[in-house]
Amino acid sequence: MTHMMPLMTRPRPRDADPMSPAELEAALRAIGAQRYHNLHPFHKMLHSGQCSLDQVRAWALNRYCYQACIPRKDGAVLAKIEDREVRRAWMQRILDHDGHLDDQGGIERWLVLTDSLGFDRDYVTSQQGALPATRFAVEAYVRFVWDNPGLTAIASCLTELFAPKIHAERIAGMLEHYDFTNDTVMAYFQKRLTQAPRDCDFALDYVLKNARTVDEQNGVLNALTFKCNVLWSQLDALYAAYVAPGMVPPGAWVPGEGETR
Amino acid sequence: MTHMMPLMTRPRPRDADPMSPAELEAALRAIGAQRYHNLHPFHKMLHSGQCSLDQVRAWALNRYCYQACIPRKDGAVLAKIEDREVRRAWMQRILDHDGHLDDQGGIERWLVLTDSLGFDRDYVTSQQGALPATRFAVEAYVRFVWDNPGLTAIASCLTELFAPKIHAERIAGMLEHYDFTNDTVMAYFQKRLTQAPRDCDFALDYVLKNARTVDEQNGVLNALTFKCNVLWSQLDALYAAYVAPGMVPPGAWVPGEGETR
Repeated sequence: MTHMMPLMTRPRPRDADPMSPAELEAALRAIGAQRYHNLHPFHKMLHSGQCSLDQVRAWALNRYCYQACIPRKDGAVLAKIEDREVRRAWMQRILDHDGHLDDQGGIERWLVLTDSLGFDRDYVTSQQGALPATRFAVEAYVRFVWDNPGLTAIASCLTELFAPKIHAERIAGMLEHYDFTNDTVMAYFQKRLTQAPRDCDFALDYVLKNARTVDEQNGVLNALTFKCNVLWSQLDALYAAYVAPGMVPPGAWVPGEGETR
Repeated sequence: MTHMMPLMTRPRPRDADPMSPAELEAALRAIGAQRYHNLHPFHKMLHSGQCSLDQVRAWALNRYCYQACIPRKDGAVLAKIEDREVRRAWMQRILDHDGHLDDQGGIERWLVLTDSLGFDRDYVTSQQGALPATRFAVEAYVRFVWDNPGLTAIASCLTELFAPKIHAERIAGMLEHYDFTNDTVMAYFQKRLTQAPRDCDFALDYVLKNARTVDEQNGVLNALTFKCNVLWSQLDALYAAYVAPGMVPPGAWVPGEGETR
């Protein structure tokens, strides 16, 4: 894979030959191998039990913003897709996250996690205690989808290729290391173990079939890089505010200063 | 209602008192009474059997573009809505139009209608035979939703307040006057008789609860006016191309010149 590394940082020239689907898949996976946020020091702390309870709280509080933006992002994806069959498959993501009929959905399961960490729901859903950098990152994601072609929008979801591994690590690590966890609290991640592979199989298949030209392939590689940045930057902000140097920006949640039950 | 007529054409001054919910509802209904496309001469022809079969064909072919944009428009609405409960309710519209699981949805039912009129499906779904004015109008609708606040986006759907009447007229008029119709062909409209009231009850309730300031109320009145224009302008274009003066623009479907089976 070494020869493909430059793909991740600069676009291939337009007069290059397009990659085969297998080469494109390898290039996408190489981006994940370098940039997916399972590699971030904050996740290593979280999964190995080195985070304090307050650091876990800060993570869950901020990550809620990401969860909350996902159905809005997927609505924006639907708005870009002309193909009804693709929309029919894609809408399952919104049903999974917002819930449908009796299922209360993934966002509700995330709130069970923040409940267990002692946060008031109104405080979590207001997003007022989240880091501004978190909110900027997740809004950039919604905006990226709107501003780009449907193919690129779909490619930005391909971080799901790498998600099952992180979820499995997280479930094992957090159940082992933190007292507040139990199967109910970890239900969000358990559910994603089956949802994410189904979602990313569809998205990867779509991208490999539809990204034929060099421009399209550059677009999808850029989209996945962008999305890795969306995830990574959230952990950078968490680390800076709650690990080192530990400077909480004005208005963001301060451990021990209330807003938790 | 006469004293409210100016509301439909120009915004109320910002220092006016906001309307009560009942006054706002009356103002919305007054817009429909003046501007909803059931008043358009083309619809009067269609429902009374005065349209030729080719004029019905042109209508169904063009109206497909509107049907096809609706789930994309509703995806854009989802992207604007922060409230999960509102998204959960709104999602039903996408499920209705695109279909979900075994239900093939409203767009498929529209294609049954264009099938019955002798069009190839690929030609219909390519939208290549539609009038440019039709496509501009429906894309303007998707764009309006994206460019405006969620409240205004939701208000743009309130033409549904007036839809059940037109659907009932259409079912009766078309079954009576046209040989190609039967219950299967008219299934789209039959389904909308129950879907549209449910949808518009929710949207009207949301708008009346959330449009409190003069600016917000001006915004929702403007949104409904805009949406009436989206619908009306499609019929103007149809009338000009296929009734009088009967000038079909370059590339649009010409009766008798193929593209139908």
